[in-house]
Amino acid sequence: MDFSYTSKVKELEQKLTRFMEEYVYPNESLYEQQLDEQESRFSGIPPIMEELKAKAKEQGLWNLFLPESELGAGLTNSEYAPLCEIMGRSLIGPEVFNCNAPDTGNMEVLERYGTPEQKERWLKPLLNGEIRSCFSMTEPDVASSDATNIEASIIRDGDEYVINGRKWWSSGAGDPRCEIAIVMGKTDRTADRHEQQSMILVPLNTPGVRIERTLPVFGYDHAPHGHAEITYDNVRVPLENMIWDEGKGFAIAQGRLGPGRIHHCMRLIGAAERALEVLCKRIQRRVAFGKPLANQGVIQEWVADSRIEIEQARLLTLKAAYMMDTVGNKEAKKEIAMIKVVAPNMALRVIDRAIQGMGAAGVSADYPLAAQWANARTLRLADGPDEVHKAQLARLELKKYREEAGLRR
Amino acid sequence: MDFSYTSKVKELEQKLTRFMEEYVYPNESLYEQQLDEQESRFSGIPPIMEELKAKAKEQGLWNLFLPESELGAGLTNSEYAPLCEIMGRSLIGPEVFNCNAPDTGNMEVLERYGTPEQKERWLKPLLNGEIRSCFSMTEPDVASSDATNIEASIIRDGDEYVINGRKWWSSGAGDPRCEIAIVMGKTDRTADRHEQQSMILVPLNTPGVRIERTLPVFGYDHAPHGHAEITYDNVRVPLENMIWDEGKGFAIAQGRLGPGRIHHCMRLIGAAERALEVLCKRIQRRVAFGKPLANQGVIQEWVADSRIEIEQARLLTLKAAYMMDTVGNKEAKKEIAMIKVVAPNMALRVIDRAIQGMGAAGVSADYPLAAQWANARTLRLADGPDEVHKAQLARLELKKYREEAGLRR
Amino acid sequence: MDFSYTSKVKELEQKLTRFMEEYVYPNESLYEQQLDEQESRFSGIPPIMEELKAKAKEQGLWNLFLPESELGAGLTNSEYAPLCEIMGRSLIGPEVFNCNAPDTGNMEVLERYGTPEQKERWLKPLLNGEIRSCFSMTEPDVASSDATNIEASIIRDGDEYVINGRKWWSSGAGDPRCEIAIVMGKTDRTADRHEQQSMILVPLNTPGVRIERTLPVFGYDHAPHGHAEITYDNVRVPLENMIWDEGKGFAIAQGRLGPGRIHHCMRLIGAAERALEVLCKRIQRRVAFGKPLANQGVIQEWVADSRIEIEQARLLTLKAAYMMDTVGNKEAKKEIAMIKVVAPNMALRVIDRAIQGMGAAGVSADYPLAAQWANARTLRLADGPDEVHKAQLARLELKKYREEAGLRR
Amino acid sequence: MDFSYTSKVKELEQKLTRFMEEYVYPNESLYEQQLDEQESRFSGIPPIMEELKAKAKEQGLWNLFLPESELGAGLTNSEYAPLCEIMGRSLIGPEVFNCNAPDTGNMEVLERYGTPEQKERWLKPLLNGEIRSCFSMTEPDVASSDATNIEASIIRDGDEYVINGRKWWSSGAGDPRCEIAIVMGKTDRTADRHEQQSMILVPLNTPGVRIERTLPVFGYDHAPHGHAEITYDNVRVPLENMIWDEGKGFAIAQGRLGPGRIHHCMRLIGAAERALEVLCKRIQRRVAFGKPLANQGVIQEWVADSRIEIEQARLLTLKAAYMMDTVGNKEAKKEIAMIKVVAPNMALRVIDRAIQGMGAAGVSADYPLAAQWANARTLRLADGPDEVHKAQLARLELKKYREEAGLRR
Repeated sequence: MDFSYTSKVKELEQKLTRFMEEYVYPNESLYEQQLDEQESRFSGIPPIMEELKAKAKEQGLWNLFLPESELGAGLTNSEYAPLCEIMGRSLIGPEVFNCNAPDTGNMEVLERYGTPEQKERWLKPLLNGEIRSCFSMTEPDVASSDATNIEASIIRDGDEYVINGRKWWSSGAGDPRCEIAIVMGKTDRTADRHEQQSMILVPLNTPGVRIERTLPVFGYDHAPHGHAEITYDNVRVPLENMIWDEGKGFAIAQGRLGPGRIHHCMRLIGAAERALEVLCKRIQRRVAFGKPLANQGVIQEWVADSRIEIEQARLLTLKAAYMMDTVGNKEAKKEIAMIKVVAPNMALRVIDRAIQGMGAAGVSADYPLAAQWANARTLRLADGPDEVHKAQLARLELKKYREEAGLRR
Repeated sequence: MDFSYTSKVKELEQKLTRFMEEYVYPNESLYEQQLDEQESRFSGIPPIMEELKAKAKEQGLWNLFLPESELGAGLTNSEYAPLCEIMGRSLIGPEVFNCNAPDTGNMEVLERYGTPEQKERWLKPLLNGEIRSCFSMTEPDVASSDATNIEASIIRDGDEYVINGRKWWSSGAGDPRCEIAIVMGKTDRTADRHEQQSMILVPLNTPGVRIERTLPVFGYDHAPHGHAEITYDNVRVPLENMIWDEGKGFAIAQGRLGPGRIHHCMRLIGAAERALEVLCKRIQRRVAFGKPLANQGVIQEWVADSRIEIEQARLLTLKAAYMMDTVGNKEAKKEIAMIKVVAPNMALRVIDRAIQGMGAAGVSADYPLAAQWANARTLRLADGPDEVHKAQLARLELKKYREEAGLRR
Repeated sequence: MDFSYTSKVKELEQKLTRFMEEYVYPNESLYEQQLDEQESRFSGIPPIMEELKAKAKEQGLWNLFLPESELGAGLTNSEYAPLCEIMGRSLIGPEVFNCNAPDTGNMEVLERYGTPEQKERWLKPLLNGEIRSCFSMTEPDVASSDATNIEASIIRDGDEYVINGRKWWSSGAGDPRCEIAIVMGKTDRTADRHEQQSMILVPLNTPGVRIERTLPVFGYDHAPHGHAEITYDNVRVPLENMIWDEGKGFAIAQGRLGPGRIHHCMRLIGAAERALEVLCKRIQRRVAFGKPLANQGVIQEWVADSRIEIEQARLLTLKAAYMMDTVGNKEAKKEIAMIKVVAPNMALRVIDRAIQGMGAAGVSADYPLAAQWANARTLRLADGPDEVHKAQLARLELKKYREEAGLRR
Repeated sequence: MDFSYTSKVKELEQKLTRFMEEYVYPNESLYEQQLDEQESRFSGIPPIMEELKAKAKEQGLWNLFLPESELGAGLTNSEYAPLCEIMGRSLIGPEVFNCNAPDTGNMEVLERYGTPEQKERWLKPLLNGEIRSCFSMTEPDVASSDATNIEASIIRDGDEYVINGRKWWSSGAGDPRCEIAIVMGKTDRTADRHEQQSMILVPLNTPGVRIERTLPVFGYDHAPHGHAEITYDNVRVPLENMIWDEGKGFAIAQGRLGPGRIHHCMRLIGAAERALEVLCKRIQRRVAFGKPLANQGVIQEWVADSRIEIEQARLLTLKAAYMMDTVGNKEAKKEIAMIKVVAPNMALRVIDRAIQGMGAAGVSADYPLAAQWANARTLRLADGPDEVHKAQLARLELKKYREEAGLRR
């Protein structure tokens, strides 16, 4: 039992914190301003982002997310956790360090399951931050939390696959730099439930790929990233675009979602920490009814509850990372399911209290709170709604007592 | 003890419901589309709104909110409650019937405390739906939930008042039709705590009035209405623009806020009802893991909890309306404080469950849920944050047992 | 819409309140003391109880619960509600006025469904407070919330019924005055699901009736009342002991449970009110960290939340009573289900806050809080657990939108 | 970052688990039965307890709690945590291993601050499990969560101290084996706020010590242990009974409460684990509405939420133990305050869900749930109510941002 970080991690923590304070926080509003000044908010990338990326790369704060690979920074999941948390304090933070969703998840897929050619063609420019990617799994017409519902088809036709389907919440596809989609569809509807699905690489400029619209989250467009609804209409790609193999889609999703989910959770802890900091600073300055808000018992309780909830969510996330590092992503599924429920709900509560403590300013864009809240809210749905993870947890828990109780089903 | 509505109310309920179904819901997206097609979202009013207003007026569904006045429809607060609720089911609903905030509150101020000239000049066109108004009370630099904090000044100078100050969350000031602001400021900083404030009428085209920006709410601009930050810089208005009298600002606020608050609560009940309806319909169609979502126990619990919470909030709101009708707005302050806390929190829970039940669609603009949630969230802050109302309730409750307990302070 | 009580009710309220203050509260500890001084806590009735009953009867505060019957006091359910609430402020209160569970429910069964002979033999002495009764429905071996699970049998054999089964939570059977049980069992396992059950009158002194033990509730024995586990072992009663008719057990239960449930809810509101009063008095006297607890913001929030929750639960209970009075117990099932969930949960929260505010004294017997809490906790289970009522509510709610949505099942 | 236990700990875990299964759980009801068969429940110790203690001692499962001392088993706090948790699964467990409250806390005080003579006289028989002790701090007349409120006096008079005061919740004083009390009182009311208090050893057979009564907890007498109200009436003890020194009472309390609090938290985690186990087993056997309760979505959610909450509370407790081991009890105050809030509230929720899942059986003595719940409820009050710990947490948190924010007070 050891709750301390190594000195390597501590150094990176300090370096990252300094970077965030010097370069990221002070440029958050400039980023928004540059977006607004573009022809449209989706027409380009704010120049400040590329400047920040260059600086981060220069300082070696780049691709810290990729464990067990020569292509990454050589950090384990539990070493990455406190760093990812710091990046998550700003909504523009993760991309600065090339550690943003959905690219980290997609890069991890390519690193684990990609062919050398796929890596050369797509992983390399992704790791360089030159292009962006999206992940096309969720569909508008079915409850996609149940992967067997998926309706998109990937049918082999000679030396090509033909893809048909309608996807939405393909996040990142609004970005003009986004060149490649990983698309989930069914190659064989007669196979076993979890071997019907495949994942395939589809360049976004392939004929038949049509971005219908981007979806807002609460009132946010999340430009230039964007959450796209995409039609795949008789889209043809060569056979070598298949990832791993036909029928491996579900297995890849399981492997992909672990890291993707835990990264989200790490970032949410950072978002919650920042919200608590914003709150604590404000309430010590703001006076009502003759005393600083910080002296109001109810608000003190918010501070204490927030500290307690953040602390617990962080420890559970670290435990999940530790499990991924020691027994593997699959065996860590229970811990991953737990944090996938815990972190967004915790962040929502902590940020909501901060909003309340700010008065009307809290719901506006003058503080990062409302935007962070909206982002956290999507994470009770993205990568599986809370209810699906809880049902899985219950099954795992009940199983422990089934045999012992002499019950067989 | 009688929980039934009169036949007059039931008829209006039916009429309103039909109107909403025929004209309002089907035009919600057209309204947004027309906004988007304008030069800017704040540059004009979607034509469909004026069409709907004309139709509503024609059907006598107009100004239903104003009790105890010849200018209104002759309904008491408790008669108006179920009607206002129906309007609140759509975010564009209340304005269609000239029953939207902050105009109803402002009209009630003018009706109760205005001079005949003020009524003729401002109340009349407001009642006709020709112009719009805003209410400039909240200030960015102080915790405005404590009215004694207010820093704006209204200083008499000869036959004029000179107004200086910075206000924000002056909702409605973004609207091109908005012509008049009711501004709260201090006329005498040496008077008793609650007699320092006054309210004064300031036409928005007066020199020195500058709308600095409008504030978003969770990414929503709420155009064309808008929540404005306004600078009042040596703004001069004639003496007759004072409402009631110098030093009456706090008293008017107390009188104004009762109706304003209860209208918000009524609308929130409608918003929650609609969210529950959207949820119930969706989960009976949507299938996951082999059965409709409506068969999942957890989701059934959401439905039950939502029904229970809506029902309780509605009854408390009706009780508050009944108290306003029978003992007056001031004596009803306890009930008004209770619903001001209950209704937004209830609506937030109910709508949040509906969002969760919709999957990712819930956070987008494809359903009215996310926008309604954001609106409800502001109402835990607007017109006094929850905490201020609860502190007031505690004081009232403790007082009951103080004398009995032989305690004097 | 009228939230006022009639003058008849107001007078009874005052009379009851005075009675409680003069006679009931001051004798709560004497009652416990007399119980302790008995040979065993179940061997007799504290004399003070019979004294109080005599006084209550003398003042006409007797059998106020029975609506629509010449045998009652002529009060409707909604008139009885505020009175029952006052009785519920003390755990010994309801019996003083002959309005305690399960006797009120049992008396209502006999009044509605009993033969003249049954009424003469059992209802009359119950109404006089001379004997007590119990209700034997719940069984230890099955989930009795699903009435079709019931295993006890009532088999006709010549001119007798033979009853076999094991029941528990037959509350009141510990009382030495308890003479009669209403027993639920199956007369016909081949009939329709809801026509298999019957209810029959079984005198407790019939051979084969064996009280195995009484069950504690969180450490409380609830003597002399007691929650009994009873074996019915070839118990023979004459045919005329059947209530209404064979196969009517489920229907009677539906009719019985409505009033039984709402009475519990009314009493819980009283229990919560008393807890809030105890809290408010204490925190104005108790000083910590230099100020009365009543000045601590967190404790003020408890007071406010408690007031809000009590108020809402009361209104919903009154609405349910009003529905029972106007459309009947069956049509009021939705409202009854709602309060059955709301009232115990509300009371538990309110009482728990009061306990916390009292410090360690709160969990002891020095205040009525811990005992009231334990009692309220049983009511999330008794007469159907929360989950069953919520599932029913969800079904009713979903149905509203099923046809409209063009869905048929 | 390492979340694994050492092999020493794992072996002890297994040994303890086996001991619990073989000897403790099967004798829980015998213990209660033997208590009931005594002349009074406080008149003696159930023989089974001494048998179990002998067996535990024999197996080396004895005094595992005492870190950094030759007298203990050589385990650190974080090594002890998973073991203490296992003991806490049964209410009679901790005493079997001589690891029960308040004796562990008292032994730790004697070990840290006692003179060689005090250790010989009191610590030795306590470590042997021959005698029991109590801790007399809380007073009925003041809010004892604020230690400066304490009214008991310890006045030097020649070569004796004279103690006067009234204490309650002196837990363990009901036990016939209880020989010694550590009493907190004021030696100097003119000293600094936190140097007025002293702790002194008072043999319970000293003239003037009078046990007035024992206090029930939600109906439980907690015999033979008992929570005593004790009058100290001119009680005289020799000077050498002072612990450490005059004026050190507050400092000792701070030192004592850390270990005492964390032990409670560890036990509560065990209690929650057992409740979850009881629930999981039961719901897989119990059928309602045609399927096992375990298939009901709502109950699955309880299982998942319970697993999540236990896991988080455990990690935070381990972190606190790790901090105590590495930076000391004082520096770990933030983590100790957090778990003191988290563990009881978590246990209450988990146990309450289990109660609900058991139906009426849950509130009875047929399962350990109700008794464990009542015990956990006291721990939101004992050793400082939640609110005091949260206020402390808020202060610590706010301080972090005060200097940074340029604020000085």
